Amino acid sequence: MAEADYGQRLARARAAITQAGLDGLLITSQFNRRYLTGFTAHDGDFTESSGWVLVTPQTFGLVAGTFQLSGVEDEIVPSSVQVLSTDKAQPWSVVASAIKADGTKRLGFEKDWISYDRYSRVARELGGDAELIPADDLVELVRAVKDEAEIATMRRAADIADDAFEQLLEEIRVGMTEREIATLLERHMVELGASGTSFPTIVACGPGGAQPHAVPTDRPVRPGEPLLIDFGCVVDGYCSDTTRTFCIGEPDPKLVELYDIVRRAQDAGFKALQDGVRRGRDVDAASREVITAAGYGEQYFHSLGHGIGLAIHELPVTARLRVQTPEADAEMARIEQLEPNSVISNEPGIYIPGWGGVRLEDMVLVTADGYEIMTVRNPEHVRSIAG
Amino acid sequence: MAEADYGQRLARARAAITQAGLDGLLITSQFNRRYLTGFTAHDGDFTESSGWVLVTPQTFGLVAGTFQLSGVEDEIVPSSVQVLSTDKAQPWSVVASAIKADGTKRLGFEKDWISYDRYSRVARELGGDAELIPADDLVELVRAVKDEAEIATMRRAADIADDAFEQLLEEIRVGMTEREIATLLERHMVELGASGTSFPTIVACGPGGAQPHAVPTDRPVRPGEPLLIDFGCVVDGYCSDTTRTFCIGEPDPKLVELYDIVRRAQDAGFKALQDGVRRGRDVDAASREVITAAGYGEQYFHSLGHGIGLAIHELPVTARLRVQTPEADAEMARIEQLEPNSVISNEPGIYIPGWGGVRLEDMVLVTADGYEIMTVRNPEHVRSIAG
Repeated sequence: MAEADYGQRLARARAAITQAGLDGLLITSQFNRRYLTGFTAHDGDFTESSGWVLVTPQTFGLVAGTFQLSGVEDEIVPSSVQVLSTDKAQPWSVVASAIKADGTKRLGFEKDWISYDRYSRVARELGGDAELIPADDLVELVRAVKDEAEIATMRRAADIADDAFEQLLEEIRVGMTEREIATLLERHMVELGASGTSFPTIVACGPGGAQPHAVPTDRPVRPGEPLLIDFGCVVDGYCSDTTRTFCIGEPDPKLVELYDIVRRAQDAGFKALQDGVRRGRDVDAASREVITAAGYGEQYFHSLGHGIGLAIHELPVTARLRVQTPEADAEMARIEQLEPNSVISNEPGIYIPGWGGVRLEDMVLVTADGYEIMTVRNPEHVRSIAG
Repeated sequence: MAEADYGQRLARARAAITQAGLDGLLITSQFNRRYLTGFTAHDGDFTESSGWVLVTPQTFGLVAGTFQLSGVEDEIVPSSVQVLSTDKAQPWSVVASAIKADGTKRLGFEKDWISYDRYSRVARELGGDAELIPADDLVELVRAVKDEAEIATMRRAADIADDAFEQLLEEIRVGMTEREIATLLERHMVELGASGTSFPTIVACGPGGAQPHAVPTDRPVRPGEPLLIDFGCVVDGYCSDTTRTFCIGEPDPKLVELYDIVRRAQDAGFKALQDGVRRGRDVDAASREVITAAGYGEQYFHSLGHGIGLAIHELPVTARLRVQTPEADAEMARIEQLEPNSVISNEPGIYIPGWGGVRLEDMVLVTADGYEIMTVRNPEHVRSIAG
């Protein structure tokens, strides 16, 4: 299997840093950290970082302590990142010392991935020695184009999710609760080799499906109603993301109607990719048009898709401009380009309060001349299982 | 069962805001949002917020969109929070409009819980109409003292974790892998009524236990070696946190020795609480002294404990000053006071690279005149199970 080429990743990141007119970059995103260094630590929440990464022409350093690295020192060997220890000093002091030693003058920082507090501590420590400059998605845009090792890993994640779902279908019965179904599916993914779920599994039957981020409840599933399952697993740090809507027994006529619309909307997204459309908003628009024309535009209030990788939501985005301003337009333009070897989701949906929801989501690898669906695609007509 | 008293929570938060010399507070922590409004949405990562909360003398608003609230509108009814919709405007514009309408002049913001980017957008929108002032842990310190409803919920979470662990002990056998054990334990917690885990379960046998945040692997457990399990569940949003170290069959003599030291260290922490010590660093020191005296001070490189609640790590902290500066001292002093109805962990440990780790953790409710252990306490001598 392909190994991660950390040298190439770092080279691409350094090129992006130079391109942005910066001398270096302070990396605080845990996903960018893992991508560049191989360090698998997981940050529980935003206030708890297992380490930062500092990249300058002279330095490629992991700013972390013995506590964080204990027992996993081997993880960072392939990337050759140097440890800048925080055992005896706060991370902002360690960064400032390295920057002063390197003579870096224009240090970028990840403005979406650092708290105001951490930002101000770094800025204070740097004093007048270097300028701290907000940077936008530099490493994220590198990550938006997957390398061979990443695509291979993501194929495994997509396959595990597919296989786990097929196992689940053998077991679902009328009367099982959303929570029971979610637990079963998650267990199968782990048994098949995933390290865990890529986000909290959504299992929503009937009206619950109208809530796009439904949390599984103790409501039992009933025949004919829509059963929406949005799930993903993690394999070697990489996420999968799939949504299926189906039913037990004879489907409610409304389910047949809405499924058909959503399936055609998903198809329109694929067709746009096949036709060479590579701007996220245009793919979103091509798909959305089908739902709008069917009269359900107001019942589809999310984006068509998002990039998938180390993070469950990453670049590129495949979304409409929700708020139309020149600033929002420019921001979107920067992050919506679908390059060959981008991995995105295609997931239109319709949500009817009191009735439920239909969402169909597959993972897509963008290729030079089209696309490839990484998951086993949602079927053309709503699937009905015995149970 | 006690219901959450949202009126009291808001009143305590408003008092803290006034106390800090502010007119209002922009709340971006998802935990503070849930605490004050009842809105259970979960933010996947720092760049994905399901909503902010704005508190001024005139306003108690949830800054969120239809998408976020769809299907869960009932959750916020008990708190009477008003929705400030982001359907037609960006959240920073919505906040600025509300602030201008209220005439708020000194608006605090949660400096640890907002990205530099979001901060600068809010600041830009506010223009000269209001001053944006970094605030420290205002709602976190309110949350650090639990109310009756919270304590009842946390008892349920602790009980579920205890019961799930006892079920697990019936099933563990030599040769089972860390991942299998983790999956079993997580399943039991969910079957017993938890909504999920409060953090990724740690199951580390033998050398893996030397890594404080070990990720379960496919290594099978062997007789006599330390088996360290750090686990927690979530019940109605509240976390539990427990660590057990035990073994299958006859314990390795080193395990007996280290267990005894760590157990005495944990005891010393409890005794300090019983003696009325209420400054986190002093409780940490009382416990740490036992491990240092036994010659393992260098092998214990984390804090004694942390607060537990809606977040798995919250206030108050029970830690040493790792880097000794007047600034760090002042910061610690602000967040280490153990008040009656604080819930903290007591979790000393010793980690020997190549051999493994011993950590013993129980959840503790601080009371007016001592403490109460919420979990079934780790036994006095290392537990050995058949298997």
